[in-house]
Amino acid sequence: MRPNNRALDQLRDVTFETGANAYAEGSCLVKFGGTHVLCTASIDEGIPRWLKGKGRGWVTAEYGMLPRSTHTRNSREAARGKQSGRTIEISRLIGRSLRAVIDLEKLGERQIIIDCDVMQADGGTRTASISGGWVALWLACEKLVEAGDLTENPVFAKMAAVSCGIVDGTCRLDLEYTEDSAAQADANFVLTDAGGIIEVQASAEDTPFSADEMAELTRLAVEGIRELCALQQAAVK
Amino acid sequence: MRPNNRALDQLRDVTFETGANAYAEGSCLVKFGGTHVLCTASIDEGIPRWLKGKGRGWVTAEYGMLPRSTHTRNSREAARGKQSGRTIEISRLIGRSLRAVIDLEKLGERQIIIDCDVMQADGGTRTASISGGWVALWLACEKLVEAGDLTENPVFAKMAAVSCGIVDGTCRLDLEYTEDSAAQADANFVLTDAGGIIEVQASAEDTPFSADEMAELTRLAVEGIRELCALQQAAVK
Amino acid sequence: MRPNNRALDQLRDVTFETGANAYAEGSCLVKFGGTHVLCTASIDEGIPRWLKGKGRGWVTAEYGMLPRSTHTRNSREAARGKQSGRTIEISRLIGRSLRAVIDLEKLGERQIIIDCDVMQADGGTRTASISGGWVALWLACEKLVEAGDLTENPVFAKMAAVSCGIVDGTCRLDLEYTEDSAAQADANFVLTDAGGIIEVQASAEDTPFSADEMAELTRLAVEGIRELCALQQAAVK
Amino acid sequence: MRPNNRALDQLRDVTFETGANAYAEGSCLVKFGGTHVLCTASIDEGIPRWLKGKGRGWVTAEYGMLPRSTHTRNSREAARGKQSGRTIEISRLIGRSLRAVIDLEKLGERQIIIDCDVMQADGGTRTASISGGWVALWLACEKLVEAGDLTENPVFAKMAAVSCGIVDGTCRLDLEYTEDSAAQADANFVLTDAGGIIEVQASAEDTPFSADEMAELTRLAVEGIRELCALQQAAVK
Amino acid sequence: MRPNNRALDQLRDVTFETGANAYAEGSCLVKFGGTHVLCTASIDEGIPRWLKGKGRGWVTAEYGMLPRSTHTRNSREAARGKQSGRTIEISRLIGRSLRAVIDLEKLGERQIIIDCDVMQADGGTRTASISGGWVALWLACEKLVEAGDLTENPVFAKMAAVSCGIVDGTCRLDLEYTEDSAAQADANFVLTDAGGIIEVQASAEDTPFSADEMAELTRLAVEGIRELCALQQAAVK
Amino acid sequence: MRPNNRALDQLRDVTFETGANAYAEGSCLVKFGGTHVLCTASIDEGIPRWLKGKGRGWVTAEYGMLPRSTHTRNSREAARGKQSGRTIEISRLIGRSLRAVIDLEKLGERQIIIDCDVMQADGGTRTASISGGWVALWLACEKLVEAGDLTENPVFAKMAAVSCGIVDGTCRLDLEYTEDSAAQADANFVLTDAGGIIEVQASAEDTPFSADEMAELTRLAVEGIRELCALQQAAVK
Repeated sequence: MRPNNRALDQLRDVTFETGANAYAEGSCLVKFGGTHVLCTASIDEGIPRWLKGKGRGWVTAEYGMLPRSTHTRNSREAARGKQSGRTIEISRLIGRSLRAVIDLEKLGERQIIIDCDVMQADGGTRTASISGGWVALWLACEKLVEAGDLTENPVFAKMAAVSCGIVDGTCRLDLEYTEDSAAQADANFVLTDAGGIIEVQASAEDTPFSADEMAELTRLAVEGIRELCALQQAAVK
Repeated sequence: MRPNNRALDQLRDVTFETGANAYAEGSCLVKFGGTHVLCTASIDEGIPRWLKGKGRGWVTAEYGMLPRSTHTRNSREAARGKQSGRTIEISRLIGRSLRAVIDLEKLGERQIIIDCDVMQADGGTRTASISGGWVALWLACEKLVEAGDLTENPVFAKMAAVSCGIVDGTCRLDLEYTEDSAAQADANFVLTDAGGIIEVQASAEDTPFSADEMAELTRLAVEGIRELCALQQAAVK
Repeated sequence: MRPNNRALDQLRDVTFETGANAYAEGSCLVKFGGTHVLCTASIDEGIPRWLKGKGRGWVTAEYGMLPRSTHTRNSREAARGKQSGRTIEISRLIGRSLRAVIDLEKLGERQIIIDCDVMQADGGTRTASISGGWVALWLACEKLVEAGDLTENPVFAKMAAVSCGIVDGTCRLDLEYTEDSAAQADANFVLTDAGGIIEVQASAEDTPFSADEMAELTRLAVEGIRELCALQQAAVK
Repeated sequence: MRPNNRALDQLRDVTFETGANAYAEGSCLVKFGGTHVLCTASIDEGIPRWLKGKGRGWVTAEYGMLPRSTHTRNSREAARGKQSGRTIEISRLIGRSLRAVIDLEKLGERQIIIDCDVMQADGGTRTASISGGWVALWLACEKLVEAGDLTENPVFAKMAAVSCGIVDGTCRLDLEYTEDSAAQADANFVLTDAGGIIEVQASAEDTPFSADEMAELTRLAVEGIRELCALQQAAVK
Repeated sequence: MRPNNRALDQLRDVTFETGANAYAEGSCLVKFGGTHVLCTASIDEGIPRWLKGKGRGWVTAEYGMLPRSTHTRNSREAARGKQSGRTIEISRLIGRSLRAVIDLEKLGERQIIIDCDVMQADGGTRTASISGGWVALWLACEKLVEAGDLTENPVFAKMAAVSCGIVDGTCRLDLEYTEDSAAQADANFVLTDAGGIIEVQASAEDTPFSADEMAELTRLAVEGIRELCALQQAAVK
Repeated sequence: MRPNNRALDQLRDVTFETGANAYAEGSCLVKFGGTHVLCTASIDEGIPRWLKGKGRGWVTAEYGMLPRSTHTRNSREAARGKQSGRTIEISRLIGRSLRAVIDLEKLGERQIIIDCDVMQADGGTRTASISGGWVALWLACEKLVEAGDLTENPVFAKMAAVSCGIVDGTCRLDLEYTEDSAAQADANFVLTDAGGIIEVQASAEDTPFSADEMAELTRLAVEGIRELCALQQAAVK
């Protein structure tokens, strides 16, 4: 039995609350159950130096956890003077995923920075960040369209992310923390609403798992991401 | 005329929302108008090394701003690998202010860490942090009392903080950002509900100001802080 | 046509040269064509603090590139004072992969550190590092067995890693640099010789790819890794 | 009784020795009793990037303590690779205070850097630094006038700083170390010779203090600073 | 008796293997017995900022040790985020030594970076680095001549380096690790093939040594360096 | 002609002023002409971790330059967050030199830290630091003898340091800045009063120099150091 009697292929309660920040060009407070992430998209009319004059834009992301977003407090990365390997890895994953669904030529010579700050963590913060980040990115691009800076939104695909895993021998969608910490395998999927693969990362915890199990995890993810994309679309309308 | 027709001695709309974080021993989302700060208190049953075996506890604070809490995005301190001088200065101020109203012997050999993370900034973030931090600290201590770890709450005084300043030649209570950035003088007050002084920091911007003006700023602060303390008391009941 | 007329499912010339370092408890210079990585395993009779007294050992890995291992020189990370996100990500991947095939209880309270230093890079340095790292780890454990510190080698599975990708619309095994930089999708597989999944990381470059393509990449990897495991076994005999 | 039978409103022996460094455009070795600070003003014909082309100059300050300026040795900040929060806070205070008495437009597009290095510390190092820094700044500006780079000295007010505090229930001027470490409240005043307020920072140590006590501390500071300004004027003549 | 029955004035087996790296403009794997250093020369058509427009080039060097180049593993400097004092000191020595034998005007406005990475350390890594670095530098300059970028090789002197020391009361050439760690004095010589002095660094370990002993160490070095220069010349032909 | 008509073998005016700091266990303000260095010796009854329980003490040194000790201001190392390679190299040289003349067993399990802070630099700051450091170290050890913590001063040799160099073709003792910056060769000698060698570092600037020139530089150093040792002895009496 899963916590809260969830079915194996059932998402937690998911909400995308847009306009959660008064200043950002796009923003979204995304909740997957007890996991809450504030995503903001900031348009920067500059561009990284190595892209200057190439007629293309850039999307990058930064991920962070508030010190007390977790059950016990984690030390503040700014105070330690160093981001953890995990933070850097997740920031890179979010940025790479979002860049895969935007036409950077159409975006023009500007940069959009997606900040994903975890207010509360109950498993799946990186996939929630990508899902909420897509919303913030879409909204910021809409603002450029409304302002006449772009003729159409350069985000060309609907996309979301979700984690799946094998817990107690069963494949499950959208793990929460207690499941995540007991999983035999753990996989993060970033997919389009049509099931196109953008990024897959799967890891065995103790013992290798089989290709069949991988296929079942993928099936759960495809289904879950279709639902998530529908929720995103409702939110940005 | 002040923005929103506020009177010179009028606070912005202020709310203290307790329980804003599911894990922290005490938490409070404080809002002074458009300034929103999430304050959490984390009890750590350890103690800094230099306090070991002295029979006393410690309270410390860390302040941070989300990158897009401001009108334009600020770079993330964790990514830069360094906290700004301003961040360090404010963190020290919050900690010092809170330690002035708690009996560290009564707290016993444990540490309480107050995290103040600014979600949205519209002036007065440091004074909002102190005011909300007091609530989080009080609640965390109440939890220790409820658990039987302490016999009474070691916070011995009601306390809050507010900024005042001279703008367009008038002394004003609780400056918002547009006022703050145009102020001739700027003062932060940390006072007890009875007007006892815990910390005062006043700075001239361009030109020195007079002792009479300082007295008027102090009068406004005493009044405002009495109101703030009443709101805090209502929140922690 | 692939460079050097390689078939789509053909590995580059791969060699595992053991004993490449006079001091390390296990060492291996692994070459995948023009990619050369020196892997050493160092046994440390200490253990990270958080593992003390738990009766288990630990395996960790550190990855680095010599400044001129690449076509143009990269700045030295030690001189910059910071490892890149890519370096940290790869180091974590190597360590996680190797820990998945060793029984840490059997290893006992000691740590083995795998250093993977890239002498020359021509694509696939992370998968070469994992493959060579397995050899170094195995040899170091053998040394512990020979010395009577362990009764049997705690590495319980044969394992290697390889990259695959989609280039010019064709799925290919073991990409070299010119292919890697032109790939539409790029996937790294860490598998046992029996095809058990330890880690899979797949990324689309410009446009999402399909589940069928993912299946073909996986098929190539399973085949290639069977060959690599055979070469490893020959080397450690 | 105060140490050395000082009266409550009596400064320690204070001297301002100009020309203490052979190279600096302005310099002053200031002594408040056992507190000795070497202040140098360096004219930099550059300007921080964010001020370029605005027709204004800048004044900034850096504070440091020699490792053995204190009773027991403090570790060297350059060796630790980090300035303490206290150091940063004091550097900012000195710079802000000096900028409040100089006309940056008149200074023109150049920067003056004030270095305040504490040779020996016996309480009140930050206020001694501001007082000595004013002398160094004034002298450097005089040099610009003599060289014909400026038509008049852009420093428009006489200014000094002093600490006051409540010790054993009495308000005292210019605390030395033994008093400072026993103070119930501690206040730093930066004032013009006419008593105009530039900066006030007051902190309670254990228990809040009253507005009346604050008034008495201010009175002592106004008096002391009038004396200090006279000594500065004698020194720069 | 020396290890391996070496005579007091006898070098270890020394080899210079050119072309050890496929990408570098010049490269050399130098071996002094068990000490192996990979030296690469990278031509950078940029120049440090402070040399721009002066019509001169620059040569700089960076030294590093692989973590397991030593008997027991040393922590990785890139991971620690800091180069050790020893590493910085040796890097500076290599660069200074090489700059002393090249005509920087003739080199033109370009920079050559010499990377010396120690694969295995058995004493004398810094002198091996300088000796191998000379070869890499020479070869990179030859490449510039071949490409028509320079009309003649700007390296104007043959040069090598060697360590000598006093062990068990005898002066010895080319110390290996077991000798080095027992030496009463230790000297590093960087000389031209004709015995011209470029750099000498001599240190007493426990007790001062005499000018006569210094003379004997110098005599050994002059002899040894003549041999080393001959080996270098054979390698670069 | 040398500046100020100095003879080739003539020191600048040298003074050792003891007791220059009120708190340090030993202190000395050393002046070599316009080069002024404040040297303090701090006794620390702790010991570095790796020396614990070995019955031996330690001497270490830290060197620093005040930002405006030089003709133009250098940025503050504490603010940059990093000591320069030059600073680290000189700190190591001072420590190594002083350790060569003290019996660390006799010192017992305590550490003496020598801080050498350059107030004003006119060439030869590292050799002035060693010479003044010897005085501070001797005085701190005397204090241990007076306090009965040691039975005799563990510093067993008189020692000083001086720089020599070849300028305009002539060998000269004790270079000042204008000479130093024009030198063809530059050598630093750390010798006992009897001419025993502790450390020699000699560098050619543009072109190699001969063994005969090295001999003449050494002769000048031996003579100069005999004089310096006499001045030190007078100072510590």
